[in-house]
Amino acid sequence: MASRMIAFEARPYAFSFPLDKTALLVIDMQRDFIQEGGFGEIQGGNLAAVQASVKPTSELLKACRDAGMHIFHTREGQVADLSDCPSSKLIRQAAAPGNSQHLQVIGDSGKLGRLLVRGEYGHDFVDELQPLPNEVVIDKPGKGSFWNTPILHKLKARGITHLLVAGVTSECCWSTTIREANDRGFEACGVIEATAGYNPSFKTASVDMISWSQGLFGFVANLEPVLEALAVLRKPSANINTPPHTPASWDGNLDISSLQRAYKNGLSLVTVAEAIYERIEKYQKVDPAVWIHLESKDAVLAAAMKLTQKYPDKSRLPPLFGVPFNVKDSINVAGLPTTTACPPLAFIPSESARCYERVMDQGALFFGKVNLDQLATGLSGCRSPYGITHSVFSEKHISGGSSSGSCVSVGAELATFSLATDTAGSGRVPSGFNGVIGFKPTRGIISFEGVTPACLSLDCIAIIAGTVEDAQKVWQVCEEYDERDRYARDTFPPDRHVNAVGEQACTFKFGIPPPEVLEICSAKYRELFYSAVQRLQQLGGELKKIDFTPFSKAADLLYDGTFVSERLASLPDDFLEVNRQHLHPVILELFEKVVARNSTAVQAYRDLQNKALYTRQATAQFRSAARDGIDVLVVPTAPEHPLISAMLDDPIRLNAKLGIFTHCGNVLDLCAVAVPTGRYEAADGATLPFSITLLGARCTDSEVLGIAKQVQKAFL
Amino acid sequence: MASRMIAFEARPYAFSFPLDKTALLVIDMQRDFIQEGGFGEIQGGNLAAVQASVKPTSELLKACRDAGMHIFHTREGQVADLSDCPSSKLIRQAAAPGNSQHLQVIGDSGKLGRLLVRGEYGHDFVDELQPLPNEVVIDKPGKGSFWNTPILHKLKARGITHLLVAGVTSECCWSTTIREANDRGFEACGVIEATAGYNPSFKTASVDMISWSQGLFGFVANLEPVLEALAVLRKPSANINTPPHTPASWDGNLDISSLQRAYKNGLSLVTVAEAIYERIEKYQKVDPAVWIHLESKDAVLAAAMKLTQKYPDKSRLPPLFGVPFNVKDSINVAGLPTTTACPPLAFIPSESARCYERVMDQGALFFGKVNLDQLATGLSGCRSPYGITHSVFSEKHISGGSSSGSCVSVGAELATFSLATDTAGSGRVPSGFNGVIGFKPTRGIISFEGVTPACLSLDCIAIIAGTVEDAQKVWQVCEEYDERDRYARDTFPPDRHVNAVGEQACTFKFGIPPPEVLEICSAKYRELFYSAVQRLQQLGGELKKIDFTPFSKAADLLYDGTFVSERLASLPDDFLEVNRQHLHPVILELFEKVVARNSTAVQAYRDLQNKALYTRQATAQFRSAARDGIDVLVVPTAPEHPLISAMLDDPIRLNAKLGIFTHCGNVLDLCAVAVPTGRYEAADGATLPFSITLLGARCTDSEVLGIAKQVQKAFL
Repeated sequence: MASRMIAFEARPYAFSFPLDKTALLVIDMQRDFIQEGGFGEIQGGNLAAVQASVKPTSELLKACRDAGMHIFHTREGQVADLSDCPSSKLIRQAAAPGNSQHLQVIGDSGKLGRLLVRGEYGHDFVDELQPLPNEVVIDKPGKGSFWNTPILHKLKARGITHLLVAGVTSECCWSTTIREANDRGFEACGVIEATAGYNPSFKTASVDMISWSQGLFGFVANLEPVLEALAVLRKPSANINTPPHTPASWDGNLDISSLQRAYKNGLSLVTVAEAIYERIEKYQKVDPAVWIHLESKDAVLAAAMKLTQKYPDKSRLPPLFGVPFNVKDSINVAGLPTTTACPPLAFIPSESARCYERVMDQGALFFGKVNLDQLATGLSGCRSPYGITHSVFSEKHISGGSSSGSCVSVGAELATFSLATDTAGSGRVPSGFNGVIGFKPTRGIISFEGVTPACLSLDCIAIIAGTVEDAQKVWQVCEEYDERDRYARDTFPPDRHVNAVGEQACTFKFGIPPPEVLEICSAKYRELFYSAVQRLQQLGGELKKIDFTPFSKAADLLYDGTFVSERLASLPDDFLEVNRQHLHPVILELFEKVVARNSTAVQAYRDLQNKALYTRQATAQFRSAARDGIDVLVVPTAPEHPLISAMLDDPIRLNAKLGIFTHCGNVLDLCAVAVPTGRYEAADGATLPFSITLLGARCTDSEVLGIAKQVQKAFL
Repeated sequence: MASRMIAFEARPYAFSFPLDKTALLVIDMQRDFIQEGGFGEIQGGNLAAVQASVKPTSELLKACRDAGMHIFHTREGQVADLSDCPSSKLIRQAAAPGNSQHLQVIGDSGKLGRLLVRGEYGHDFVDELQPLPNEVVIDKPGKGSFWNTPILHKLKARGITHLLVAGVTSECCWSTTIREANDRGFEACGVIEATAGYNPSFKTASVDMISWSQGLFGFVANLEPVLEALAVLRKPSANINTPPHTPASWDGNLDISSLQRAYKNGLSLVTVAEAIYERIEKYQKVDPAVWIHLESKDAVLAAAMKLTQKYPDKSRLPPLFGVPFNVKDSINVAGLPTTTACPPLAFIPSESARCYERVMDQGALFFGKVNLDQLATGLSGCRSPYGITHSVFSEKHISGGSSSGSCVSVGAELATFSLATDTAGSGRVPSGFNGVIGFKPTRGIISFEGVTPACLSLDCIAIIAGTVEDAQKVWQVCEEYDERDRYARDTFPPDRHVNAVGEQACTFKFGIPPPEVLEICSAKYRELFYSAVQRLQQLGGELKKIDFTPFSKAADLLYDGTFVSERLASLPDDFLEVNRQHLHPVILELFEKVVARNSTAVQAYRDLQNKALYTRQATAQFRSAARDGIDVLVVPTAPEHPLISAMLDDPIRLNAKLGIFTHCGNVLDLCAVAVPTGRYEAADGATLPFSITLLGARCTDSEVLGIAKQVQKAFL
């Protein structure tokens, strides 16, 4: 998993880059800039030079694709009503006295459609450089690629630190973008033959300024050495692209990369679907409580066939093509009952949850809906009328909850990922107990639309997966601003730069709870946690002292305060009375206790004022807010791994204890990922997984996942 | 007040700009780039060219200062621990094989201090180009001026659309900044002699690329025509700078520009202080209820003397030098009691409110603390044990509240501005009734630290002033992120570009409440409102249909829902019992009604979920969120202007009615400004002011103030 480094001759000196952290950025290779009758002809006149850059850029693009690199394409243009176009951009050039050049401006109808308007023929990429479904297209309103676009976020979200930059025009969008990228910390190398402008002297100066003074803005290189360096990687890839003579091999591994490689190699989706179905049927005997609704084998095979037909070209597969998944049964799938493990609440939605739609749109293969603690309330996995799931590691130990079925199904390799939820730890705790990744992104960046709320203002989608990389890929597919989700995030903290090179590229600072807080852990868990902390330090992590108080106080607010009342706010007033006999006894007892508290609105507003205070105090300790802060807070995912029997004996107190390290996550608007860090032998001889959770400040998901990858690697 | 246009010869054609909307931007004229032994010497070697740019830049700076233009200075550099420095910036150049040039990197100790580190001698500006106290300094971590700096916000906040750009180096920070500015909609003109780089051919190419193709990125001009164009303005200004021979004249006008001009002309601050004090004493006879604490004349004169001594150089005065102001008596001033018009709550703070400190730091002159509705609860001005203020226009009509004293004191010209608060309309309603500007910025961008809360999560500082320009200047001084304020805003929506030229520069889109909502207004108010709407359309405003439902529903939440319970959340549980006899009877009745509602936490969380929903629905109608939305919602500031007698007869219902158009402001996270739009004759013969309020989406304060200035001008 170590980054493979590639290097080639460049100016001011050889450019070397980690293959998996590098993107090819193709700037504005649009018909409007390259073909006759477009905006470029008005702007620059001579199109020969830019047209000549299409072929070298195609060669570069092919080489980068064959090498498996990330590919980004930018496109300059405005929305149809031009409301994202500054008036100066419309007026300045055409207003020149005696103007006979800019007789048409952006938005006017030209031969290729309305000039530089999104959706028009001329605005799109030239045929030779059309993007593939798994490549990123950035629509930008300006010349730079970073103004009012999501490119910085999307580069960071993919862990990218290095760029190869091609495209037009050298003097304008290409060099502006390289300058912007440099300020943001990226190491960029412009590829000389793959860029062109309307004026040869401008190209020369633009290229020279980048590499001047030992690399003022970055690097520049000729195409040939780049292609040669990447050719080394093309060999195996060329094999992949030839039709397989023998049946494609698949090692049974469900991670997305393995599946993608195998599908490209000719593996049939039906083969995978059948294999998974067989595993599921087998596991029913080990644990019959995983599924609330399992799709029929016929339905799964039909879906597999449909996907196969929809994507006949194996070089153009969407990012989740044929990736098996399921959803927690509080997430709507049109036409199937949503039970939230509470039959009286069950209903059949006509529309699917937004996150389900997103992954289905990218080719994922749906297997069904999985078990959870009733009303997504609980961390045990023992509060469902559909049965008690157990850890994939031990029949006697709890699976954790509320996303019990999600974590068991991924842990048992019945799915690559599961879409789940996390309000107080429901995505993290069961991930820890099943040895899988539980990623709870910053609240509001995956739509919660179409999901039954537990505590709406604190609810969050969680992604359960086998690896950090897979969780990250699913996150990238799901993430969007959804106006229908009232808590969708539409404001963001200022962005941070990336550290592309040097020891800064892999070091991080972290805090941990103080010893008195860790006292709640079992002795074994404490030992495992401190040992994981030592490993993080060996990785280059710097342990820093922090003030844990706001994290503790926030956790207290969640269950000791009035926040739990919000669980009742989404239910009818008479819900408990009417459904008393249908509720799981533990849930009934819990809710009755909440009602008995008679919490007042005044108390609620005091709690909310405290929430704001603790959030401020916690956030201030992270590097995103303070210069000298931590990147992540590292905690044990849970304080111990109870036996099912112990949980049944003490279902409320022990459940609350399990959330000691997760409760603060959404209260303080943090993001978090639970990562397995080895196994241990329990008192009864069972081998169980141990897990730590990394918590980061809101909107530092990319940075936290980057550290999580290092942790995962260290414990492989 | 029309923008004075200036024009000079430039490439590709004459650059013309509105004087009051233009800033000179001086890029990185730091010792580190210009003097020997700094970072520039390492980077570029030959310093002669950049040193030669100091003199022309000084000439340009002087001309722009004399013309009264906004001046911005940028400074490249990192914080001391280099945590804002991407690792590539530290490593790339020095890592070049055989490197003998970059032997020192950023942060290393050079002859001028640590290279490019903030606070070091070399990091500061060369002596000739040091900024004045009223000029803006932007510290930037990168080469572009817009990456991770507040420059876009600060330019917008001053209404700037055009830039003259000087500084070093041409190939690097100067041209990168012009490119960034162009994408953001600014019309920029680079001044050729006032920029320089380390490489002559790079300068030529950089300059040429800006103006190529009839102005690809903007304009470039030689210094001489710029100086000549500005020289026309220098004449009167030159007079100002010569010592006055006759006593300086002052027309008694309190607006900040008039005062600044007069002070520069030699007017004594003591003269102003005495004149104001005389006005205050006179007005005591008209309305004795304005002040809760009036500073003694001796104290004011002593403060005036101290300021005079502190700023002996009249060309270097801070932006609020000698500007008289007061504060609402819920805002702490160290050593003076804060009463919040509720004597049992009175206390003497040891620290002043942050907003008070900010304006004092910039030279403002404090006169005292003014009356308000008790506990900042009310919109009438009739709920204070310190007496009932009346409108400055009529003894019989209410002043409005809760910021009654603030608005009366500014309306009566006893202060240039007052710092007040606005939770449900407390800054806006009384502004309307006294013919002044009431500006309630987006919540959380002025610190609420040191202010007695009314409803903490909805409380907002309001600025009361005579003109929009003055409110804007005070806002710019007060605005900051204050970590101690738990609700201080630290996340922001994406920025919008500016429209610098063409009709887009002055048109706007607005919505109004539907007729059935306006039914609540008196017939006269409806007539006045529709007439104001027509005037807005004549100004170029486009009236658009909107969905008023979320605005109405949000207003209902504020008083009919549980939000009013938050007013009790900041008080001790036994507050009402203990202080019953000390409370204003109307406040007691109101609070008792709130208590009697027995609002539950569940109801509170439901209200908060609805608040989030209505905020989403309201925000979605503004252009900041939707392409085709409105810039401002325009409403009557209040539905009618009651007599004091009517308010005393019906103190709760009538008060609530007054907030019909203000209640939604903070609930929906909007910014708002009340602007007088003429006067009318009331039934009793009194001449009263009418006022409309412009509400904008959060963080569009600059845009809303820009429209407010147009409105103000239209009704002068």
